[in-house]
Amino acid sequence: MNQTLSLPTTEPTHQRLTNLHRYWLATNYLGAAQLYLRDNFLLKRPLEATDIKPRLLGHWGTQPGLNLIYAHLNRLIQDTNANVLLVVGPGHGAPAILANLYLEGTLGDYDSQYAVGIEGMSQLIRQFSWPYGLPSHLVPGTPGQIQEGGELGYCLSHAFGAALDNPDLIVTCVIGDGEAETGPLAAAWHSNKYLNPATSGAVLPILHVNGYKLSGPTIYGRMSNDELTHLFTGFGYQVRIVSGSDPMQVHAAMWQAMNWAYEEIQIIQRNARSGMLMGVPAWPMLILQTPKGWTCPLTVDGQPIENTSHAHQLPVADPAGKPTQLATLETWLRSYHPQNLFDGEGRPFSHVVSGCPTGSRRIGMNPHANGGQLLVPLDLPDYANYAVPVPSPGATSVEGTHTLALYLRDVFCQNESAQNFRIVCPDETTSNRMTPLFQATQRAWMGPMVETDEFLAPDGRVMEILSEHTCEGWLEGYLLTGRHGLFSCYEAFIPLVDSMLNQYAKWLKVSKETPWRKPLASLNYLLTSHVWRQDHNGYTHQVPSFINLVVAKKSSVARVYLPPDANCLLSVTAHCLRSRDYINLIVASKACQAQWLSIDEAREHCSRGMSIWEWAGNTGIQQPDVVLACAGDVPTNEVVAAAAILKDHLPDLQVRVVNVVDLLTLMSPEDHPHGFPETAFVQLFTANRPVIFAFHGYPMLVHELLHHRTNPNRFHIRGYIEEGRTTTPFDMLVLNKMSRYQLVLAALTHLDKRLDRQALAQWCRAKLDEHAAYIRREGQDMPDVRS
Amino acid sequence: MNQTLSLPTTEPTHQRLTNLHRYWLATNYLGAAQLYLRDNFLLKRPLEATDIKPRLLGHWGTQPGLNLIYAHLNRLIQDTNANVLLVVGPGHGAPAILANLYLEGTLGDYDSQYAVGIEGMSQLIRQFSWPYGLPSHLVPGTPGQIQEGGELGYCLSHAFGAALDNPDLIVTCVIGDGEAETGPLAAAWHSNKYLNPATSGAVLPILHVNGYKLSGPTIYGRMSNDELTHLFTGFGYQVRIVSGSDPMQVHAAMWQAMNWAYEEIQIIQRNARSGMLMGVPAWPMLILQTPKGWTCPLTVDGQPIENTSHAHQLPVADPAGKPTQLATLETWLRSYHPQNLFDGEGRPFSHVVSGCPTGSRRIGMNPHANGGQLLVPLDLPDYANYAVPVPSPGATSVEGTHTLALYLRDVFCQNESAQNFRIVCPDETTSNRMTPLFQATQRAWMGPMVETDEFLAPDGRVMEILSEHTCEGWLEGYLLTGRHGLFSCYEAFIPLVDSMLNQYAKWLKVSKETPWRKPLASLNYLLTSHVWRQDHNGYTHQVPSFINLVVAKKSSVARVYLPPDANCLLSVTAHCLRSRDYINLIVASKACQAQWLSIDEAREHCSRGMSIWEWAGNTGIQQPDVVLACAGDVPTNEVVAAAAILKDHLPDLQVRVVNVVDLLTLMSPEDHPHGFPETAFVQLFTANRPVIFAFHGYPMLVHELLHHRTNPNRFHIRGYIEEGRTTTPFDMLVLNKMSRYQLVLAALTHLDKRLDRQALAQWCRAKLDEHAAYIRREGQDMPDVRS
Repeated sequence: MNQTLSLPTTEPTHQRLTNLHRYWLATNYLGAAQLYLRDNFLLKRPLEATDIKPRLLGHWGTQPGLNLIYAHLNRLIQDTNANVLLVVGPGHGAPAILANLYLEGTLGDYDSQYAVGIEGMSQLIRQFSWPYGLPSHLVPGTPGQIQEGGELGYCLSHAFGAALDNPDLIVTCVIGDGEAETGPLAAAWHSNKYLNPATSGAVLPILHVNGYKLSGPTIYGRMSNDELTHLFTGFGYQVRIVSGSDPMQVHAAMWQAMNWAYEEIQIIQRNARSGMLMGVPAWPMLILQTPKGWTCPLTVDGQPIENTSHAHQLPVADPAGKPTQLATLETWLRSYHPQNLFDGEGRPFSHVVSGCPTGSRRIGMNPHANGGQLLVPLDLPDYANYAVPVPSPGATSVEGTHTLALYLRDVFCQNESAQNFRIVCPDETTSNRMTPLFQATQRAWMGPMVETDEFLAPDGRVMEILSEHTCEGWLEGYLLTGRHGLFSCYEAFIPLVDSMLNQYAKWLKVSKETPWRKPLASLNYLLTSHVWRQDHNGYTHQVPSFINLVVAKKSSVARVYLPPDANCLLSVTAHCLRSRDYINLIVASKACQAQWLSIDEAREHCSRGMSIWEWAGNTGIQQPDVVLACAGDVPTNEVVAAAAILKDHLPDLQVRVVNVVDLLTLMSPEDHPHGFPETAFVQLFTANRPVIFAFHGYPMLVHELLHHRTNPNRFHIRGYIEEGRTTTPFDMLVLNKMSRYQLVLAALTHLDKRLDRQALAQWCRAKLDEHAAYIRREGQDMPDVRS
Repeated sequence: MNQTLSLPTTEPTHQRLTNLHRYWLATNYLGAAQLYLRDNFLLKRPLEATDIKPRLLGHWGTQPGLNLIYAHLNRLIQDTNANVLLVVGPGHGAPAILANLYLEGTLGDYDSQYAVGIEGMSQLIRQFSWPYGLPSHLVPGTPGQIQEGGELGYCLSHAFGAALDNPDLIVTCVIGDGEAETGPLAAAWHSNKYLNPATSGAVLPILHVNGYKLSGPTIYGRMSNDELTHLFTGFGYQVRIVSGSDPMQVHAAMWQAMNWAYEEIQIIQRNARSGMLMGVPAWPMLILQTPKGWTCPLTVDGQPIENTSHAHQLPVADPAGKPTQLATLETWLRSYHPQNLFDGEGRPFSHVVSGCPTGSRRIGMNPHANGGQLLVPLDLPDYANYAVPVPSPGATSVEGTHTLALYLRDVFCQNESAQNFRIVCPDETTSNRMTPLFQATQRAWMGPMVETDEFLAPDGRVMEILSEHTCEGWLEGYLLTGRHGLFSCYEAFIPLVDSMLNQYAKWLKVSKETPWRKPLASLNYLLTSHVWRQDHNGYTHQVPSFINLVVAKKSSVARVYLPPDANCLLSVTAHCLRSRDYINLIVASKACQAQWLSIDEAREHCSRGMSIWEWAGNTGIQQPDVVLACAGDVPTNEVVAAAAILKDHLPDLQVRVVNVVDLLTLMSPEDHPHGFPETAFVQLFTANRPVIFAFHGYPMLVHELLHHRTNPNRFHIRGYIEEGRTTTPFDMLVLNKMSRYQLVLAALTHLDKRLDRQALAQWCRAKLDEHAAYIRREGQDMPDVRS
């Protein structure tokens, strides 16, 4: 454990408070200037309409608060040598963070055009919200950040994810009072029940209450201090409120509050690390109440602005068009007295930046914000050691997730010293048959425990909370700071994080375009308890839509795997854990089911992505009459059964079975890097024979994947068509027209070979009738269709 | 206002407590029996393995708590005549609710096979979790319910939505301690800041803490009572905790707690309705702490069960297979003494059900739970009155959402007395240019107000909270109880509710299959600030994925509209507000843009769904050389421009423009009821000419829609390909290859007519170069591409 040398906090002196205030004025000035100016950056001459940018884009309201927090964090770091990662919820206040990064020099260290000086200052101001310049929100290209300034709700779970297993780190998380209204943020407050101060770092939440969101008042802005204190005490925190509109008073209070929070963190960690602390510690949190748009004009053209929602974006809306507004803007900008902050060359006076930390202690240089550079590859066991013996296809049946759990258990063991692997899950590890994990680790839990509890420990590396949002947020924060993980989830409820996936995919794409961002471990999903085995929980638990979402992402980041059995699941998972910068989606049932491939066959099959299963169709054929294809474990089972029926009943028919494990091999190479070249594709599917395709998810999706293939209309896709209820596994297939009998009927319909198909069709229909009668009478599936 | 005659609460008597307890035992017995028995329902003979169902499916853990709450609500209703709608979060405890519905007689009223008596009792027990019987979770077919027992997180926002504008109603909402961990639930506690006790009903939250979720302890189960009280006091509630494992003690405490809650509600409503209350009232809430699986076996085969997570589903896992477990199950079932509860004919003794209310006061018969039967159609103004004059195509420019807001303003006005229309929005009404709404109503707000606040009032009908989850939950609850509404949202962030939409679509589908469920007003989305106009907020704000999600729903419920201008937006919205049982998605920019159709043309165009825009292409042609098609307002603008360029530069070319407003008309009629017949489709798109299609969303989606059309490969789709940043509107088009110049280049590439295309291609490339240079230099788009 790399413990920071922790120095004591200090009391404020007049001189340091004054300098800190000047620094704050400088960042406020630079923030406002970024919104408005295309020239005259030091206001050396009167402001003119031509100095104003042609398109005004950006947000002022949150900036002064962000600048205040940044300045006081700098002071704390300078005094104590604290290792601070800053997670900024209100990332639309990018000019504030950019101003701080500029002044501390990190912006220039990452991109020399922003080096401190008149040129760098000009570039900062001019490039902000300028096409191909600095984006209006925080982005992966912003130094020191792990949080995009777009969708709100995730900063706190990201912060906790970053703090896990980083005992040295204090993750300061600024939460806007707008963002605090979101569900994902509200759920994340309970993360304190999972953070072990002995082995992980600290999260210091700062709820920044400025009273308004985009246009209305915020809930947190209108709660009384009594209510706020009750609420966060109830969440388990110690609360300190810093409030005011007089800067020097707020500086003095904030200085003390930062000291208090830092000292409380030190006490908690010291006690925990010496074994003197049990249970959930009352971590400190701050509530900072300052006016929205603090220090901007009180009114513009008679309309109240400061401390109203009108300060959210541009306090002065049209300075180029309205002379009175130009004057108001000039007065506002000059109120910071830039000539007292910057010399004639645009360099900040030394006392202005005397409070900035140096070197890697600067917030913009925190190494954890570029997690890839800290990434230690997982030490992975050979997955062949966990192979299920498959003497012949279908001879063995196992629960694939149980097999996988044995492998993942040893991933935990082999990386115990690196402390860099975690699994998140909404309380489903045991339900998903992954209990073997608990041979190696436990479920993280800091709360009180009772005798009958199972698999709980403060040091547990399986993180279970009944909030998919929090699971996802923790994992993202953990990955972004250079570690590894897996999200195991019921398939039906993973769409709760659709929007988080959208945003993470965007982060990844831009991150890969940012030269200094190093590759991250991939974001891995294991979806089990899937649509075809939710017959018992019923229709609400049958949702395969997440595949569609992942497929719609950039082909440079999206990967989808549908392993047909346990050995393929092992192969695919090991591959995903080694991969970088992808979103890997694995869908695999937890149910006991037939196994098809030996481990060597599985490795070969998975490395190809899709291949012919000779043994399942007619062997030694050149050109089949019909291809039965499958993607997904349950569809595979039905296709193997359907092929057997066809072989049995129609000896003159030539049947081929193709299994698809890497779904995006179906796409053409121009659409996805995994896409099979057309010749290879035709080798599997022929050029013109009918293909009956049983798919795990919505059939329309396969049509979408195939649209660049020749003659796509010969593909007849079966899949989940949103039919379901509480019924049996086989009846789920029948309801959705994907049972073996219906696949055979489909093959008979689309065959162009002349054959007597009448008898077999009748046999299939009789089987379906028999099924319908049997389940109503017996309450379960016929023995010959149970897998 | 139809105020209930409110009677006073009563003190418990020994006799009534005893009867209430017997009722509770009876529901517990019936709940356990449903999980296990296929025969011997009254235990008239010893239990045998053959009495056990072949597949055991269902959840016990939450049932005794649900039964307790139900019994005490019954008692309260009986005493006070309260009008109670029960929203059940832990809907996986369906056997409990079914047992209560059976005993109160409503289950039999809805379906006579479940009438009280041995036949009905046998059917209830036998049919539970039996294929084609009673599903394992609460479903639309369950009387008295507006909440499906599937995905967790939404019961509380549903409850608040149901209470709005129903002053007579007490919506009691049971929240499991598992569900309480979710983000959407956590956010919904703040709904109290929006509920006006003068004009709306009450929500009584009952947090049911039984300590465990699926397998781990719950957070709320391990918080101290002090923490719980702090937390919910902070959220603004008055908290009373009822705790225990001795049934009679819990009954006594619960009786008093129910009285207290009811009286507090009465006081709040009385004060509010006489004008004596200001601000957010401290509504009562209950926390009920009882053991998980209360009254089930303490241990089974030596393993602790009651009060552990092992009581979550089946406390006795394998009674048919293990004789010791069969004995344990028999002892458990007999512990309720069924012979004291039911006569030999399975009829409950009268004292057992003496506490049930009668008639429409029974919870299963609450009319609000079948909202369609209360639905009053909106009185809609003639949208033609709001028409934008369009003297010629493109001659006018307006902000479409502003026009729409004028119409919606009058929808509020004309339905003022019915009080049955609301708009929910995550704080974006003014940003979306819909401020005219505030001429008719305000934003709902019960909290403190200050002088500079705008458009806030306790009675406001626009509900703004920065939680898409809460917005959606409120609206769903409002619709499910028979009212009307609209969700206005940024396009990029609506995927936050993807999962809620999945579940609501499922509810709608099953609801339409349930004969007694009456049609509901449709769930209407208006997505504005869309992908093509989020150039200023950048890449994170550019997400058109919600269209994909809606399209993947059942064609019986999904509708997608992309109105190209304000008059079409009016027509489409009026249609959606009149429709029933659909999910209507409307995507329309808030930006000022060119208008194309007069109101009569718009009506005609929207009623067709798609049509040829003669004026935009070459007029009077039989067979065009190329079709330019568009769906979405920004794509339309580009296609009109591209057609103009082609007409201008290539006079020999015959160009046709087709606009698609109802997206699913593209599908074949076999795939969607709005799908154009093939002949009509060919009349628009020809049978074989190249089609350059500019689409609002992801291009792959259009391929999916077209896959049953003949020769789909001649469609060349342009749309959003996940390229974006902070840039200009036109550059967004260029980045995604959908600008007018790129559309022209695409047309030139795919044309099969012999033409000299070189000069035009060069001209287009020069324009693109000019654009690239111009925006970098000027920070904005060239004047000739600004719309």
